[in-house]
Amino acid sequence: MKPTLTKDTRLCISLSGRPSNIGTRFHNYLYDVLGLDFIYKAFTTTDIAAAIGGVRALGIRGCSVSMPFKQDVIELVDVVEQSAAAINAVNTIVNDDGRLTASNTDYLAVQRLIAKHGLRPEQSLLLKGSGGMASAVASAFRDNGFEHGTVIARNAETGQALAQRLGYEYASDVANRTADVIVNITPVGMSGGAEENDLAFDGETIAAAHTVFDVVAMPSETPLITAARSAATAVITGAEVIALQAAEQFERYTGVRPSDEQIAAASAVSRA
Amino acid sequence: MKPTLTKDTRLCISLSGRPSNIGTRFHNYLYDVLGLDFIYKAFTTTDIAAAIGGVRALGIRGCSVSMPFKQDVIELVDVVEQSAAAINAVNTIVNDDGRLTASNTDYLAVQRLIAKHGLRPEQSLLLKGSGGMASAVASAFRDNGFEHGTVIARNAETGQALAQRLGYEYASDVANRTADVIVNITPVGMSGGAEENDLAFDGETIAAAHTVFDVVAMPSETPLITAARSAATAVITGAEVIALQAAEQFERYTGVRPSDEQIAAASAVSRA
Repeated sequence: MKPTLTKDTRLCISLSGRPSNIGTRFHNYLYDVLGLDFIYKAFTTTDIAAAIGGVRALGIRGCSVSMPFKQDVIELVDVVEQSAAAINAVNTIVNDDGRLTASNTDYLAVQRLIAKHGLRPEQSLLLKGSGGMASAVASAFRDNGFEHGTVIARNAETGQALAQRLGYEYASDVANRTADVIVNITPVGMSGGAEENDLAFDGETIAAAHTVFDVVAMPSETPLITAARSAATAVITGAEVIALQAAEQFERYTGVRPSDEQIAAASAVSRA
Repeated sequence: MKPTLTKDTRLCISLSGRPSNIGTRFHNYLYDVLGLDFIYKAFTTTDIAAAIGGVRALGIRGCSVSMPFKQDVIELVDVVEQSAAAINAVNTIVNDDGRLTASNTDYLAVQRLIAKHGLRPEQSLLLKGSGGMASAVASAFRDNGFEHGTVIARNAETGQALAQRLGYEYASDVANRTADVIVNITPVGMSGGAEENDLAFDGETIAAAHTVFDVVAMPSETPLITAARSAATAVITGAEVIALQAAEQFERYTGVRPSDEQIAAASAVSRA
């Protein structure tokens, strides 16, 4: 159940091409647990400019942004934080009395995880993937001082472009490469995907790594994470990225930081 | 308590200069009672064009409109129904897949009450008041064929303008006038007002009337209604207007017509 709605209840929304119920469940669960006078609902639109204009004019407090609007909203807000500007992609807009500030909490979550897990800029990187999330992850590493990186991507065009933007090397496959930190930012190992049982890196590369980071969150224990644990290699999971980015977004909207346990419970509810 | 919000939950809102909780309570109470997957919340704005653009772009299903936006929204919608066009004032906007239709359910409610109470076009009218609601009420009578009317208003400018538009007479006070149907559309008799204990018409005018209609809804039993009942004169109350206009608005948003009892219960809850 939820508190009675009043004129003072704050509304947060999401805008995406194909809304799911995950964000709606996640945020409303936490509003309920924390006793916050907020509601959250997913929306879609065919007019992103008018939708963002409505967010501003109606005083909608927060707006989560997904595909295909992550770039389009940049020119519609008042302030673009470095987290979004670095990767030319927004996933979070906060409305302070009509002033819209855009950020990217995926990028911020990766930055926090780099610090939390004690990764150091002199470590070498292998980053597998060249999509939007790969750009966020790779940029977070680069902006934290990691200079020695290789982007691995089958798609030469997007892979080379990402590598070039960051001053990293590009390769079309892992081959015999090794690095201190290896990061999977492709759907390999994702539940329900064509490669759900595959390993994103081979055993030797895993064994040679200091830390294995898999951005895939479903399942939390991917074949890559399982293999890394077997090799006694340190791991960072996609579940950590999702929880951190969601906590960051939630705090920006409400001013309240949920506990790790609350985030975990909300994540479980939202994906049930 | 309310059903769990999902991406498919429909949102209805109100836009006014000074939001109250009445509409929010009224609609959410009925959604709950009727098991409808809707939520309703009051908003204000400093940019009515962007707010209505947001209603359209976000697929907000319905938008109740109050002062000072009742005229401004006319040029922002796709269709203006006769109920709103007749008085140049909108209080209800329905969004059908991005196509916005504006109407005025106060006007529609008065038309229904004219029919329900068996009032006839050949009856003479005394209409006291010249504000926005007076315009809605007087126009509903005029458009139902009532040709013999007098607008009574202290404000000569607005009173004469309204009378002239409808082809009615104008007078600055009631004096010794009588008519078959007498209608109060001023704050006289309203709870908490400066004239809450006053009679909108004198005893002789009330005694001579066939029907006494008081648009004041708080309280439902105004001094005028009480006096009319004492004189065994037929009455129409402001509570009837409010209930009918709200039912009409609710049905336009949801497709469901609440019963009279449900409307009465929702009104009681919303004004508690």
